Amino acid sequence: MAKSWANLGIDLHLEPTGPGLRRGLTDALREAVRTGRLAPGTRLPSSRALAADLGIARNTVAGAYADLVAEGWLTARQGSGTRVADRPVTAPPAEAPRPRPCARPAYDLRPGTPDLASFPRAEWLKAVRRALAAAPNDALGYGDPRGRPELRTALAEYLARARGVRADPGRVLVCAGFAHALTLLAAVLRARGVHTVAVESYGLHVHRDLLTAAGLRTVPLPVDDRGTDPVPPDGAGAVLLTPAHQFPMGVPLHPDRRAAVVDWARRTGGLVLEDDYDGEFRYDRRPVGALQNLDPDHVVYMGTASKSLAPGLRLGWTVLPDAPAEEAGALLEGSAGTCGVLDQLALAEFIRSGAYDRHVRKMRLHYRRRRNELIRALAAHAPHLRASGVAAGLHIVLELPPGTEQDVIRAATWQGLAVPGLGFFRHPAAPGPRREGLVIGYGTPPDSAWSGTLDALMRALPER
Amino acid sequence: MAKSWANLGIDLHLEPTGPGLRRGLTDALREAVRTGRLAPGTRLPSSRALAADLGIARNTVAGAYADLVAEGWLTARQGSGTRVADRPVTAPPAEAPRPRPCARPAYDLRPGTPDLASFPRAEWLKAVRRALAAAPNDALGYGDPRGRPELRTALAEYLARARGVRADPGRVLVCAGFAHALTLLAAVLRARGVHTVAVESYGLHVHRDLLTAAGLRTVPLPVDDRGTDPVPPDGAGAVLLTPAHQFPMGVPLHPDRRAAVVDWARRTGGLVLEDDYDGEFRYDRRPVGALQNLDPDHVVYMGTASKSLAPGLRLGWTVLPDAPAEEAGALLEGSAGTCGVLDQLALAEFIRSGAYDRHVRKMRLHYRRRRNELIRALAAHAPHLRASGVAAGLHIVLELPPGTEQDVIRAATWQGLAVPGLGFFRHPAAPGPRREGLVIGYGTPPDSAWSGTLDALMRALPER
Repeated sequence: MAKSWANLGIDLHLEPTGPGLRRGLTDALREAVRTGRLAPGTRLPSSRALAADLGIARNTVAGAYADLVAEGWLTARQGSGTRVADRPVTAPPAEAPRPRPCARPAYDLRPGTPDLASFPRAEWLKAVRRALAAAPNDALGYGDPRGRPELRTALAEYLARARGVRADPGRVLVCAGFAHALTLLAAVLRARGVHTVAVESYGLHVHRDLLTAAGLRTVPLPVDDRGTDPVPPDGAGAVLLTPAHQFPMGVPLHPDRRAAVVDWARRTGGLVLEDDYDGEFRYDRRPVGALQNLDPDHVVYMGTASKSLAPGLRLGWTVLPDAPAEEAGALLEGSAGTCGVLDQLALAEFIRSGAYDRHVRKMRLHYRRRRNELIRALAAHAPHLRASGVAAGLHIVLELPPGTEQDVIRAATWQGLAVPGLGFFRHPAAPGPRREGLVIGYGTPPDSAWSGTLDALMRALPER
Repeated sequence: MAKSWANLGIDLHLEPTGPGLRRGLTDALREAVRTGRLAPGTRLPSSRALAADLGIARNTVAGAYADLVAEGWLTARQGSGTRVADRPVTAPPAEAPRPRPCARPAYDLRPGTPDLASFPRAEWLKAVRRALAAAPNDALGYGDPRGRPELRTALAEYLARARGVRADPGRVLVCAGFAHALTLLAAVLRARGVHTVAVESYGLHVHRDLLTAAGLRTVPLPVDDRGTDPVPPDGAGAVLLTPAHQFPMGVPLHPDRRAAVVDWARRTGGLVLEDDYDGEFRYDRRPVGALQNLDPDHVVYMGTASKSLAPGLRLGWTVLPDAPAEEAGALLEGSAGTCGVLDQLALAEFIRSGAYDRHVRKMRLHYRRRRNELIRALAAHAPHLRASGVAAGLHIVLELPPGTEQDVIRAATWQGLAVPGLGFFRHPAAPGPRREGLVIGYGTPPDSAWSGTLDALMRALPER
C-alpha cells in the first residue's frame, strides 16, 4: 500500500507555521507558489503522500489543497492531480549561471582540445551499460581514492602495450585529468622539501601556475634547435617535460637528452615528470615510447583521456615510482577520491573491449588527414613560412618572421579566428631569443567548420 | 581503404632497434612477448596496419611476423590473424593493486554509506543515455570548473523545492562530493585570513582533518541535551554544522540556536557552513528546512548525492553567498573542474525527469521500514537502552551506560559486526562529559544481510 504512493510525485519541503495546521500548510504552499519555488504546472504530491511525509492527517492536506484551488493558486483536474496554476510569478526568475568570460570565436584553432564531434557516444554508452551491469554493489561506495582496480589494471596493460610504459596496477593512480595529477604531485614534492621545479621554456602557463600555487618555484630550461635541454640546474628537485612531443614546439626529446635527464634524476634523487599528453597520435615517424621506460624508479608518467576521448570526462592517470606512489596515496586518504566510479568502470570496459584502440586508430587517421590538408594549404598559400612539429600530435607550429607574431594574431582575430602565438606559451623568465610563430591546433574544429577555418587562417597569414 | 584497417587491431608501441629493420622489429616484438607486455592470446595488428603505423614496408612486418611464428612466439591461423602464442611468460605477473588496509567485516553497521544494492542502475543508465544524446559537443570539452549549467539549474530548482534552499544557478557550485567542497571552502577561508573554524564536538574526524590540512585550527563547540551550542567563540571565522540532523547525535538544531548562529554570522561577518548530508531522509517529524534559508548571505549550503544515490558518483554541490561564490570560482579557474561532465549531465537529467524524487521517496520508505525493524528489535532485546536520533537519517544512537562502550564494541567485533562508538566521533578537545553509545548505520547492509546483521547486533548488546 505504502508503495503505491512512494513512486509518485515530487519531493517537496514545506514548513507549515502559525496556529491551525491547515492554515499553516495553506500559507506555506501559497508562499512556495508566490515566490516561484514551485513552478507553474508542477504537479503536487497526492494529499495522501504529502500527509505521510509531514506526519499529519490526509484531510488537512486535502483541505489546504482545496483552499488554494479556490484561491486560484492551484488547479485540480480529474486524472492529472493537483498542479500549480499558470500565473505570473512575482519573484524574479532564477538567474542563469554567468557566461564564461570569453565569447566563442567563429573559427577556433587553439590547441588543446580534440575534435569533440568525434567522441564515440554510442560506443561509450555501450561501455557504461556493460560497466553498470557488471559493477559489484561495493564499487558504488566510498572506494580506494587511488582509483578502481579494474581501471588501474586495464591502464597498466594498455600503457605497457601502446606506450611502452613499465606499469603494474599498484603504481597506477587515477586522477581527474592532468591538472589534478600535477596538483597532487606538487603536494608530494612540497612534502619532500622540494622548492624548485624546472619546466620547459615553452609550455602551458596553467601548469606553471598550478606549481606556483602549490608553493613551488618554476625555473625555465633553455631551448635550442634540438628542443629543450632537459637537465635542471642545481637546486631543482624535479623537472616537468613533454618528451614524446614537446608542447608546443612539437619536437621529440633527443635520445641523448633522454639519457641525460634520467642520469640527472639518478644522480640527484630528483623526479622527472613526463607529460605524455598526446602520445597516441603520431603519423609519419617512428613512435617515441615513454621516457618512463628508461627508469621507472625516477620518472613519473602522466597521461589523460582528454586528447584521445574528451576533456569533459576528467579522466587521467599517472604511473609512479614506489615511494611517490605511497606518498600520493597517503595524501589522498580521507579524500574519498575525485573521479566518479561509473566513468572509471566505463573507461576500463572501453579499454578492455578494444574500443579504445579502435577509437585511437580511427582518430589518428582523421587527424592525419587534417594535418595533411593543413600542410597542403600552407604550401600553396604561404610557401615562405616553415611549419614544424608536424609529425605527431594535434597541432603544428608555423614559424613567423621576427616582429610579426602580434600582427598575424590581430589579423586572425579580424577573421574571427582564435589562434595563439608562441609568446603565449613562453615562460616569463625564459632564457634565449624569443621565437615567433603560430601554434595551430587542427584537432579543435568540428568537420563542418574545418574548411572555413582553414580559409580564415590563410587569409590571416602575411604575404611573402 | 585506409578505413578498412583503422578499425581493426590493438594499438601497439614498438621501437625497432639495431641494424636491419626486419631484425629490429623482430627483436622488439619478441621482447614484448617475452616480458609479458603482450599477453598470450593477444591478437596483433595486421601487417598492413602495423606497417602504416611504423612507416615501414608491409613486407618487413610480414617477415618479422613469420620469423616469430617460426620461433614459436606467435601463431598464425587463417581467419584469426596473428596472435601471441600461449607460452609461459618469464616476467613476473603484474602486481595487483594492494588491498585496502581494513578487511571487510561480516556485518556492517558503520554509518555513512547508503544501501548500495538499491542504486537505481536501470534508471541511471536511462539518464546517461538521454544526457549523451542531448549533450552539445561543447559540453565534452574543457568546461566551466564550477559545473555544467544544466546541473546547476536543476539543482537550484530541486534544492529550493525539496530543501527550502534559496538558490539561483549562478551561486550553485558542483563538487566531487562533500570532501571536495569542504577543501575548497577551507581554501576560501584561508585566503580570507581565517585561522579558526568552530566544529561540533561530535562529528567526522576526516572533516576536521581536511580543515587542519588546509591550515585551519578547529575548536569544538559544547554539546548539551538540545544538541550543539552553535555560536562560535571569539576569533573563529566560520562554523561547520549539521543543522537538520546533527551527525552523529541525530537531533535537529533548535530554532533558537538556528537564529543565534545566523545572528553571530551577521554580527561578525563569519560564515556558517551547513552540511546537509541526509536532509532528504526524514520519517516521523516535521521536515527541517535548510538553515541557509534564514540568511543566504551568511550560510553556505552543502549537499551530495552520496546518501541519496551513491558515494561512488562523487557528486556534491554547494550554494554560496555572492562573495564566497566568486572567491571559490577564482580558485577553480585553471583547474578545469573535477567532475566528469557525463555524470553531471546524467544527474541533471535524473533530477529533471523526476527520477531523483521518485528514488528518494522510495528509499525513504525503505529506510523507514529498516529503522522500524531496528527499533522493534531493540525494544524486544534491550528495552533498558535508549535509542535517540531516530526521526531522520540513516543512523541512530543507542545510548550506553558509562564505561561500557568499548566492551560492547569488542563484543560486536567478536560477532563479526563493525559498529563505531560515540568516542570515535568525539573531537579530541571536546569540552564536557564523554557520552557513550553506538552509532548504528542501518542504511549500510544489503537486504540479504539485514536480518543477520540485526541478530549479530542483538547478541553483542549488554544484558540488563
